[in-house]
Amino acid sequence: MSVLVVGSVAFDSVETPFGAVDDVLGGSAVYFSHAARYFSPVRLVGVVGDDFPEEHVQRLKDMNVDTTGLVRMPGKTFRWKGRYDDSMDSRETVDVQLNVLGGFRPDVPESFRATPYIFLANSSPALQRHVLAQMHSPKLAVCDTMNIWLDNERDELVRLLREVDGLVINNAEAVQFTGETNLVAAGNEITAIGPRIVVVKKGSNGSLLFIDGVCHPLPAYPTTEVNDPTGAGDSFAGVMMGYLAAADDLSTQTIKRAVLFGTVMASFNIEDFSMRRYDTLTREEIDRRAEELIELARF
Amino acid sequence: MSVLVVGSVAFDSVETPFGAVDDVLGGSAVYFSHAARYFSPVRLVGVVGDDFPEEHVQRLKDMNVDTTGLVRMPGKTFRWKGRYDDSMDSRETVDVQLNVLGGFRPDVPESFRATPYIFLANSSPALQRHVLAQMHSPKLAVCDTMNIWLDNERDELVRLLREVDGLVINNAEAVQFTGETNLVAAGNEITAIGPRIVVVKKGSNGSLLFIDGVCHPLPAYPTTEVNDPTGAGDSFAGVMMGYLAAADDLSTQTIKRAVLFGTVMASFNIEDFSMRRYDTLTREEIDRRAEELIELARF
Repeated sequence: MSVLVVGSVAFDSVETPFGAVDDVLGGSAVYFSHAARYFSPVRLVGVVGDDFPEEHVQRLKDMNVDTTGLVRMPGKTFRWKGRYDDSMDSRETVDVQLNVLGGFRPDVPESFRATPYIFLANSSPALQRHVLAQMHSPKLAVCDTMNIWLDNERDELVRLLREVDGLVINNAEAVQFTGETNLVAAGNEITAIGPRIVVVKKGSNGSLLFIDGVCHPLPAYPTTEVNDPTGAGDSFAGVMMGYLAAADDLSTQTIKRAVLFGTVMASFNIEDFSMRRYDTLTREEIDRRAEELIELARF
Repeated sequence: MSVLVVGSVAFDSVETPFGAVDDVLGGSAVYFSHAARYFSPVRLVGVVGDDFPEEHVQRLKDMNVDTTGLVRMPGKTFRWKGRYDDSMDSRETVDVQLNVLGGFRPDVPESFRATPYIFLANSSPALQRHVLAQMHSPKLAVCDTMNIWLDNERDELVRLLREVDGLVINNAEAVQFTGETNLVAAGNEITAIGPRIVVVKKGSNGSLLFIDGVCHPLPAYPTTEVNDPTGAGDSFAGVMMGYLAAADDLSTQTIKRAVLFGTVMASFNIEDFSMRRYDTLTREEIDRRAEELIELARF
């Protein structure tokens, strides 16, 4: 089965305690695609400016990503600049230039509308609902969100959560959204709004996965190789969705495995800046690390 | 097999967002004993003042704790006062009155010196070494520590770590001690000093268990029932040690199970103030929750 992602394509500038890069390839849809394609064919909807090199598009095509939904508009590509502190679990956005992303209202190509597995990467809940409305009864629709929507577009986000099957959110956002400092309580509260699946991501502390109201604590892969966390969340989501699309099964055990593979992909993503780790990463390495983590976490 | 604990007996005053108590039974050796006794006979070394009610001592005896090593000295029992913030994962010490604990230099009763499993609860590393030197080749010696010793008695702590088999430490202390914000790197660094087993406790985020240099991420039991975290770490250690003493086996899988049972006991401990939860807790409840956690964390 195919998986569809609607999200950003970006040039990122990132500073961490271990280095810095300027104007490198980034964006939620790009990270998602680089990760998901190890598991299933990917369809991408996004926008770039006229400054976006054709070679980046070709690279996506080469890795089995259908770029029919990648729109090129006059102007500059979205740019994001961020900085990570020592813990690498929290970051500060230094600068955002929306550019062509600012006025982008995604139209899902007709050939994409029956895709069974879809991921709505972070954008305004209204735009996410606009995309969802164009789809023909997906088997699984999962969304991301971020802090700015939690207060400013709360009502629209609640509407979205009633329409999707899943949400991925980080721990700070889950606390902000629910007012609950206990993450189990926070996840339960979000589940009560609607989605069957809620993933509360905790960075190096793993995640809490809520399925049908039951909370499963999942570990992160223990690693000292952390150089740039940018895109880890989108790589995680990419593999979670790609794994489910490949399995075409939504049982609890398959969802848990999908999240475990997602966490493993995040551990590769953070080893190097931008998409660099994907230059050499093989499916065999992913499977091997997943087996290792399963063994480490086994009783 | 028996397990020996050398630690504090205290009256605690605790304030959390969910309530407050004054001058209730506490102390590392007491929490440890209340938890460990579900798994193995316990021997306790500690000190109380002449204000300590005999009924508390009788209660320990009733639960198969050998109090031969509990010394009564003229003066007042150790008192600790603390406050927890909303996250319940960090706390502030509001007041400490050492009283009889201040001048206490533990003498291990002759009948205790061959105990094979021993736990050195938090005190100065010099005192912990003083106790360890009295023991006859224990099979497993594990110590705790806390922030004040990490800088002030660092050299002595390093000496202690070369002599023990295990250390339990929380995440903030592990970072403070090693200067490593990555907890996997921090655990590796402590392992390199000497102990075969290092447990880095992360509160509601579970723990990292290092055995022979391999890092195993372990979950916490997901719960919304958190009213007072006081003593959770000592209850955790009590069950970890009691489980190992009962099994009398130090293989990796048994150590992992021991830590899992410890984390489960911590989840009971935090449900109520002081020792209250132990008034009704049964071994069956502990086993059932451990099985549940194993199932939740299984892939």
